[in-house]
Amino acid sequence: MTLRSSAQALQFQNIGIVGKPQNPQAAETIQTLHDHLLSLGCRLWVQQSLADDLVSQDATFIPRSELGKQVDLIVVVGGDGSMLNAGRTQIQHQVPMVGINRGHLGFLTDVRPTEVVERISEVLQGQFDEEQRYILNAEVIRDGSVIGNSTAVNEVVIHPGEISKMLEFELFIDDQFVYSQRSDGLIVSTPTGSTAYALSGGGPIISPKVDAMVLVPMFPHTLSSRPIVIDANSVVELVIAQDSRHSPMVSCDGQENMSLAPSDRIRIKKHPLALRILHPKNHDYYEVLRTKLGWGSKL
Amino acid sequence: MTLRSSAQALQFQNIGIVGKPQNPQAAETIQTLHDHLLSLGCRLWVQQSLADDLVSQDATFIPRSELGKQVDLIVVVGGDGSMLNAGRTQIQHQVPMVGINRGHLGFLTDVRPTEVVERISEVLQGQFDEEQRYILNAEVIRDGSVIGNSTAVNEVVIHPGEISKMLEFELFIDDQFVYSQRSDGLIVSTPTGSTAYALSGGGPIISPKVDAMVLVPMFPHTLSSRPIVIDANSVVELVIAQDSRHSPMVSCDGQENMSLAPSDRIRIKKHPLALRILHPKNHDYYEVLRTKLGWGSKL
Amino acid sequence: MTLRSSAQALQFQNIGIVGKPQNPQAAETIQTLHDHLLSLGCRLWVQQSLADDLVSQDATFIPRSELGKQVDLIVVVGGDGSMLNAGRTQIQHQVPMVGINRGHLGFLTDVRPTEVVERISEVLQGQFDEEQRYILNAEVIRDGSVIGNSTAVNEVVIHPGEISKMLEFELFIDDQFVYSQRSDGLIVSTPTGSTAYALSGGGPIISPKVDAMVLVPMFPHTLSSRPIVIDANSVVELVIAQDSRHSPMVSCDGQENMSLAPSDRIRIKKHPLALRILHPKNHDYYEVLRTKLGWGSKL
Amino acid sequence: MTLRSSAQALQFQNIGIVGKPQNPQAAETIQTLHDHLLSLGCRLWVQQSLADDLVSQDATFIPRSELGKQVDLIVVVGGDGSMLNAGRTQIQHQVPMVGINRGHLGFLTDVRPTEVVERISEVLQGQFDEEQRYILNAEVIRDGSVIGNSTAVNEVVIHPGEISKMLEFELFIDDQFVYSQRSDGLIVSTPTGSTAYALSGGGPIISPKVDAMVLVPMFPHTLSSRPIVIDANSVVELVIAQDSRHSPMVSCDGQENMSLAPSDRIRIKKHPLALRILHPKNHDYYEVLRTKLGWGSKL
Repeated sequence: MTLRSSAQALQFQNIGIVGKPQNPQAAETIQTLHDHLLSLGCRLWVQQSLADDLVSQDATFIPRSELGKQVDLIVVVGGDGSMLNAGRTQIQHQVPMVGINRGHLGFLTDVRPTEVVERISEVLQGQFDEEQRYILNAEVIRDGSVIGNSTAVNEVVIHPGEISKMLEFELFIDDQFVYSQRSDGLIVSTPTGSTAYALSGGGPIISPKVDAMVLVPMFPHTLSSRPIVIDANSVVELVIAQDSRHSPMVSCDGQENMSLAPSDRIRIKKHPLALRILHPKNHDYYEVLRTKLGWGSKL
Repeated sequence: MTLRSSAQALQFQNIGIVGKPQNPQAAETIQTLHDHLLSLGCRLWVQQSLADDLVSQDATFIPRSELGKQVDLIVVVGGDGSMLNAGRTQIQHQVPMVGINRGHLGFLTDVRPTEVVERISEVLQGQFDEEQRYILNAEVIRDGSVIGNSTAVNEVVIHPGEISKMLEFELFIDDQFVYSQRSDGLIVSTPTGSTAYALSGGGPIISPKVDAMVLVPMFPHTLSSRPIVIDANSVVELVIAQDSRHSPMVSCDGQENMSLAPSDRIRIKKHPLALRILHPKNHDYYEVLRTKLGWGSKL
Repeated sequence: MTLRSSAQALQFQNIGIVGKPQNPQAAETIQTLHDHLLSLGCRLWVQQSLADDLVSQDATFIPRSELGKQVDLIVVVGGDGSMLNAGRTQIQHQVPMVGINRGHLGFLTDVRPTEVVERISEVLQGQFDEEQRYILNAEVIRDGSVIGNSTAVNEVVIHPGEISKMLEFELFIDDQFVYSQRSDGLIVSTPTGSTAYALSGGGPIISPKVDAMVLVPMFPHTLSSRPIVIDANSVVELVIAQDSRHSPMVSCDGQENMSLAPSDRIRIKKHPLALRILHPKNHDYYEVLRTKLGWGSKL
Repeated sequence: MTLRSSAQALQFQNIGIVGKPQNPQAAETIQTLHDHLLSLGCRLWVQQSLADDLVSQDATFIPRSELGKQVDLIVVVGGDGSMLNAGRTQIQHQVPMVGINRGHLGFLTDVRPTEVVERISEVLQGQFDEEQRYILNAEVIRDGSVIGNSTAVNEVVIHPGEISKMLEFELFIDDQFVYSQRSDGLIVSTPTGSTAYALSGGGPIISPKVDAMVLVPMFPHTLSSRPIVIDANSVVELVIAQDSRHSPMVSCDGQENMSLAPSDRIRIKKHPLALRILHPKNHDYYEVLRTKLGWGSKL
């Protein structure tokens, strides 16, 4: 494939690069990507902490949190976890992202390192499918005031905070009482997260095309509790039991934690902004599923 | 509650009654319903096979298949199964339905027999919520021609037809290959069916507000196979293995069966018409779930 | 039923009473039990912390840990949790135990408070079935030395210690490598514990007559991981991953915790001594299962 | 490895060969096996239906059913299914069996075709571990008389016989009532069968060293129904509902079927004789599990 297009013809010219620092595999891919993007005439902004991993005279190194203001496209080099982190922190800038996996295919990082030159060229020329992935917003409300706020691309988990303790809570969906539960916690997952932690907990796989979220009980005390798939536009509220003797926690994508007190209310709903993820033209969701989950191939 | 409204003021005047014949409990409720509707000035058409269960000088007894052409509203007296049957057979007439349960609450038949007079009066006066429940259409395609066609309110099940035999098939969603599978079959369920057979098979509960269908593998040969929730507007296709030595079957709502041959293609998609179900104003989906599934009550 | 037998004819004369302090329901049953046992001529030792709950001129109040040396029989008034605690602490004295439940039937506390007089009289006269329930011993081994030791009636749980972290370990059974796993932890349960936490995690119910233990993976990273039932005389060893960055924990019956370091070895095996539990003659294991799990009754 | 031992020194001299007819892969292994056994001085009896697959002047071809009377050892060439069939039909002769798998490792057929000469030589010289695998006996009792009888190495399945019908039955273990159930059936499995059909149905893996059987409900109508592991010496009885309108079936290892009528009683218990299976010295149960179930390898 020959690429003669000048930078002026490219759909994206100001490119941000983020990735996992001090990872030799990632560093190699980042250098290849950097050289290729410069050769196409792009301007580059690179996450500060990659300064030791990249030889560059032309790229501007800035803190990751500044990146979203400068660029038209963010290329993430890493695993799905890097994509989650980039997604959560850049969401307000609405910059589209494309993911290059360091090794095997990821659910979100679907460009293989061996095809980085070809696929990124295609994306810059506008040959891609854009997918919107909604993300969750979790608020903690105490005595009527919002005291904490966080976002999750995969899932919000409410758990007892201490090991071997039970969480007791009431669940409401759109102000309707659903159930009270004693369990090890509750996972509230997006379709993006349905192939991650929620799947380990017995939840279904949810196609990203379905505008839904899934509630997966964790080790529930009752045998009749099952995953529930609800409208993604619902408002989910958990109310921690009044006499809870522990300090439960809210965890977003397994990263950001907020502490809870008895009678706290956790309100989870769709964030007004969605992630913009670009897939190369040959992207096949079910092929990724088959590869990642070890499903059988054609008869 | 006294009702003096003349029939002219009612939203529905021509009412169809269907139910389970020769069931003493149902018969009692049907008589009460019949007397009450006549007292309101309605005209009644009753399913022929209920002739022995109902004393009436005024109602017209006609075959159930004729009912949909005559009436504005169908009242089903029975369990969810009666509602499924009525729904499948009346779908083309797009007549709204309301369900009276003979005993406990059903998912679809949410009027208790003890409140039949009050709730039906309310419905006739326009106090109800209308809910659309999509249904599935299953076609069997052999050598390029459609040779069979059926509809399902709950689920379409493809199974080996003979006990202790494996089904081998390939699955496609919107023409994309998903997986090949050896199993006891596959359940393709609507949200309506997600609390029925699909739930026994480990599928999630899906709120009727989510426009999705769920594919639940039955006793799959591989441990990594999981329920998948997909867009209800997808086209699901199964291709029976070429060397299949049995005669697999397609079953709709556990009632209507079609036989399959090797290489047959089963195409399942949303029917263009949806069921119109009327709920009394106080209807609460989660209360029905709690009651039916034995979930704990408030802390 | 009239009981005229003198204390000399009783199978047990020195009785210990343990229970939950400051619980009005339990206190009432304890007083009834106390009065009845004195009327039969028994000598009583009562757990010190029940001193405020019991009016007695004749019983000796001593620390619970001293109890096992003095008595022939321990009566536990409380739930299954009280029985677990009593069992773990008294195991070395091999005193038989009988459990009186404060409310609903328990799996281990199978005398109802309303029948305490009748059932305890029967037990004292030798009308009971004795059941042996084996318990687990968990040792933590660091650099070849045992640095911690605990016992469990229900289950030993190895978990990451911190929320939202993965546990990485290798599993060996009788020195044979089984698998390496990334998960939220592993439950190693006795048949006694199979109806408790292990059941929430998807483990099977194991009849107390089966000399087995069950290993239940918690939210395993791989979909093919399943509960495994092995010989109760096996030695189970987990080796924590060398590069583990957290401080995993071992928890016995959700009560006693031991901290772990990378490369620690946790050795779990049957304790040489078993709990001796006495059941009234009419005890029916499956009735308790039906009641506790809400199973259907006879057709 | 040189083998100079005369036939007199061998532990087994009269060898039976069974296998899958008209399977080129199996035929090749059978020829190799045949030639090798003759070279060692063994006398051979070969299953009649293999006559077209084997060139032999010395072996005696006889019906498989006659084989057990003539030989000291049966070598099965095929998959686990061939081993099940051979096991069920030869059980009364108590001849030990060794299994050679045509391709991948099986749970029962644990000699690879490439190592047939070496491993079989070792076995003949007494270098093996003998394992007893108990099998199940299922009797159908009508009006107090046994009207049918069959055996199963893996599992006995009781199912509705017709697709999309419910089975209603009562379950008793050792004459104690356990539950009544409406479901798609019940699997009663040995440890041998626990990695087969019962595993697809959500049952646990049971080590062959545990003297237990497992009852796995199939698509039960109630959410609280779970697999139960019971003593292998228990007597399991199912009583078909009196008003059953279908003709349920009993199926043993998916092969032998018996028809049932309302009120029939199915009694399942351990067969008095066990299979005798010989494993080469290097046999590792957990390695087979890892390979067959796709578990992760060492960290």
